[in-house]
Parts: sequence; C-alpha cells; structure tokens
Amino acid sequence: MSFDRLIQKIREKNNPTVAGLDPKLDYIPEYIKEEAYKKYGKTLEGAAEALFQFNKGLINALCDIVPAVKPQAAYYEMYGWQGVRTLAKTIEYAKKKGLYVITDAKRNDIGATIQAYSAAHIGKTDIEGESVEAFGADALTVNGYLGTDGIRPLLDICKADDKGIFVLVKTSNPSSGELQDRKLDDGLTVCHTVGDMCENWGKDTVGRTGYSAVGAVVGATYPEQLGELRKALPHTFFLVPGYGAQGGGAKDVAPAFDENGIGAIVNSSRGIMCAWKKEDCDPTEYAQAARREAIRMRDEIVTCID
Amino acid sequence: MSFDRLIQKIREKNNPTVAGLDPKLDYIPEYIKEEAYKKYGKTLEGAAEALFQFNKGLINALCDIVPAVKPQAAYYEMYGWQGVRTLAKTIEYAKKKGLYVITDAKRNDIGATIQAYSAAHIGKTDIEGESVEAFGADALTVNGYLGTDGIRPLLDICKADDKGIFVLVKTSNPSSGELQDRKLDDGLTVCHTVGDMCENWGKDTVGRTGYSAVGAVVGATYPEQLGELRKALPHTFFLVPGYGAQGGGAKDVAPAFDENGIGAIVNSSRGIMCAWKKEDCDPTEYAQAARREAIRMRDEIVTCID
Repeated sequence: MSFDRLIQKIREKNNPTVAGLDPKLDYIPEYIKEEAYKKYGKTLEGAAEALFQFNKGLINALCDIVPAVKPQAAYYEMYGWQGVRTLAKTIEYAKKKGLYVITDAKRNDIGATIQAYSAAHIGKTDIEGESVEAFGADALTVNGYLGTDGIRPLLDICKADDKGIFVLVKTSNPSSGELQDRKLDDGLTVCHTVGDMCENWGKDTVGRTGYSAVGAVVGATYPEQLGELRKALPHTFFLVPGYGAQGGGAKDVAPAFDENGIGAIVNSSRGIMCAWKKEDCDPTEYAQAARREAIRMRDEIVTCID
Repeated sequence: MSFDRLIQKIREKNNPTVAGLDPKLDYIPEYIKEEAYKKYGKTLEGAAEALFQFNKGLINALCDIVPAVKPQAAYYEMYGWQGVRTLAKTIEYAKKKGLYVITDAKRNDIGATIQAYSAAHIGKTDIEGESVEAFGADALTVNGYLGTDGIRPLLDICKADDKGIFVLVKTSNPSSGELQDRKLDDGLTVCHTVGDMCENWGKDTVGRTGYSAVGAVVGATYPEQLGELRKALPHTFFLVPGYGAQGGGAKDVAPAFDENGIGAIVNSSRGIMCAWKKEDCDPTEYAQAARREAIRMRDEIVTCID
C-alpha cells in the first residue's frame, strides 16, 4: 500500500532505473519482424507478435539488472487490440520474471469510469463473482487534472492490493510549462499544486521507507524544479522520464533522490530499446546491447547519487 | 479538418446528443450474458462478447436517432484485451451504421508517444508501408495538461484525415474545481486558460460552421461556467457530459449552444444504456427502451435550445 515493494526491488538490484518498453516496429530487428510476418502476415497481428518477441528478449536480458519495466500503452494501442494483447502478455511475462511493472497510460476520468480503469490496470474485474486480472500491473501513471474524484478509486485499489500510482506533476517535454509552470493566485505553480495534492492523496498510505502509494511523474529535463519538488514532497516517490534520448543526464536526475539515495526511479526507453542501433552491433544481439546500456545507465546514476 | 462533419450529422438528425457506450456487465440483460457465457465461459472473452452484443443492439436501435456514439475506453479495458477487441468491433459497427464515433479515452502524452495514440485512435498505423486503422474513431477526447507538445501530433491527423479532438476543459465531477477553477496570476481560471489554448490550437482548422477541429469537454453540471466558456471560445465545439445520471438537465446544457443552436453535443451514457432498468420493461426490450430515452432526450434538449 506504498511504494515499499518497488523500493525493495530497487535496493536488491542497487538500481533505481526502469526500462521503458515502448516498442515500435522501427526499433525491432528485421529478423524478429520477418519471423512474425511469416506466421501472421504484415498485419496488426504480425506486428503485435513482433512486439512481443522483442519485449521477451529485452525482459530476459534485463530482468537481473533492472527492478522494473514500464510499458507505454500508446505503442501497444497503435497496433490495435492485437497490440493490446501484447501489452497484457508483456506484463504477465515481466511479472513472472520478478519485475515490478508500471503501466504508463496516463489514465484519467471520474466516478465509475476511473473505477473501471483502476480495475483494468492495477485491480481486478468482477465477472459473475469471479475476480479476474485484466492487465495486472503493479502501478499506473495517471493524470490529476480532474481532482480527487479521479484519484480516490485508484487509491482504494492501492490500499487493498499493494499497488501504486504516479500522478503527472511536471512532465519532461518542452511545452510542459505552458500550464504546469503557470503561477496560481497563491504564488504556487500548477505543478507544485498538483504535487501538494499527491502528498495529500497519499497521506494514509506512507510505508516503512517514508514514501506513500501516490507517486509523481517529474521530468529530468527540468533539474531545478525536480530538486525543489523533491524537497517540497517528502512522501511522494518520483518516476523520472527524460533521461537519455530526451536530453537529461545523470547529474540532472540526481536531485530526484533524497539524502538516503532513494525516492525516485529513472526511466530510459529508447536508450535501452535502441542500444543495438547506437552500438551498430549485430541485430541478433539487440537484447545484449540493451543489457549493456542498462548496466551503463545504472552505474552512471548510482555514482551520481552516492 | 473541423467538426463540420459531426455538425452535418447533428443537423440531419436534428439531434445534438451522443449516446455513450460505457457497457458494464451490470447494465447488460441476463439473456445476453447467458448466451455469451455459453459460448466463451464466464471469462474476459465471455464478458467481451456480451458487451459487443449489447452494443450492437443499442447501435441498431439508435442509429437513425442519434448522430454519434461515444464509447468510453475504460469499460472495454476493464475486460482486458478481449474487451479492447470489442471496442474496435463496436467502432467498426457504429461507423458502418453511419454514426460518428467519439472515443472517450482522455489520452495524453508527448512526442512520439502522443503520435502513437493519434495513430491508434484517429489515424493509421504504418506496417511496412501499409496504412492500417487500429481503432479508427472520428474523434478522441484528450487531456491538455502537457501543453502544445501533447496536442500537435493529434492536430496533424485532424487536418490530414478530417478528424477531431475534444480537450478536457471543465469536467462534470464534483472535485473538478480543485485544479480547474483555481485562478492563475492573470486572473483567469485554469479551465478558462486551457479553453483559450483550445481556441489557439484550433485556429487554422476552422470550418464552414465556424468551429475548429479542437473541441472542449465542458460539463453540464456547471451551467454558469458552460455559458461563460461558450462566449469565450467561439470556435471551440463542446462535448457536454453530466446530463442525466450526473444531475444535469436540459436547461443546464442550453448555455452550451450558440445563437444558431449549434456548438455542442450532449452526452448521455447510463440514461440511455440503462433505460430498460428504469422503465422496468422486459429485458429483451432494452434496445427499444434506449431508443425511447434517446428520443425523449433529443426532444427535451431541442426544445430548450430552439
């Protein structure tokens, strides 16, 4: 009912990073695609099969290095329901390999609808008295624009099933400031205000480590705000995108961590998935290249927060 | 590349309302569920089949009355990838019946990821040079918290394929004001500011009717703000939730319309889907009950805006 379970895995692997699984066909070696197309044609089904095989290879190569993976729902939805089936299979496979799974879906809605999203992604669905896991991730990213009504049903599941949510606070993109950096009439920025809401939403879910079940997404591309928010939100665990491909470096993510070197997990997606292209290695070694990059990233970040 | 296509359908049917397709097992008559379970068991697949048969009945009964349907993604995701397959089949079926389809998914992200969502829901996915529709809706609801980066790729598809988006501006839930009604340091509220962004994002997509391809979600439960936003955002077409089950009445939605009686489409989900329960009619007449409610709602709203 907090992020203790994730923090435990981070400690075991001495690695506060998460591998983003955002597979596009462009990122996948030809030999994997060819095999999938042979079975299912150049169709959504064929693409979805290629995605799954690619992910499986990555998970196998990364599962003793990283504590967590973060599949991004958009890349699966792009390949239709067949792609969404690959999302479900990927989550199942990653959990079997002992990984903590954060579904990055930035869901948001109210009432019965956010209840449905909660059940879908981190909870269970009732079918005539049987509880079934639809996707079964450990944590979900959400958007807090709708206020407490849009968060409460997620919290109920966090408490009941020891799951977590990450609320978008300060995103890593260039235009994030258009709304998020605007000052409200009390002098606080919008993102700081949403951060305060996270502290409040999480307050009765704080675990042994001092962090609640309500985390925040705070981008590595704004290191100053990252540090300010770290200080302002002592019980809010951070998911930090923007490292690597988006321009954030290890020094930029350091302010996300507290004086004990915990409090955040840093994501890299393209950096890890496309390491084989950057290395220009044999495509059949894509998973090993991903592993090398994950180790490099771990070492770089651990050095910066020690 | 504007909402002209939707407005045309509204005019043809003289009906500015949309039927929400948010199917939960609770809403579905037993006989439909029994048949589905007989084929596929009390499983996600069985549930998803029941959802599809329920939707098909509703679409058949409503397609000459309403111009549009609005499936809410959460209710499909709750039933796993099997449910998401039902979403795809529902959209396909509704389009075949001549309906405009708004996928209510409140998606949001940046860069390549929002591109992936755009392709998934209103655009096309490239598979080795072939363009395939993954879900193929006409419009998508989105959340603007991330700023212009999170909207631009959607706009490109709106322009290229004559699609639309609805950005969350003022939602219908009780706690929507926690963030959306806060005043920024220039005196404007957050929701008004996001509304202004919609006007700006849509400015080069304004159609014959005066409305752009960037609409706004503005709830019926705050009629005063609805009227203010209507005046402030003359090119922004409104999708209005909150009518019926959430407490909004026909008088509450009237301010959403301009002096020509256009500018908005009002949603009812539970009111229509569960009309058979309210009427207490024979469950096999659920679709006819939905039709009666859709006609009642149409007449009530048309009277109020005439």
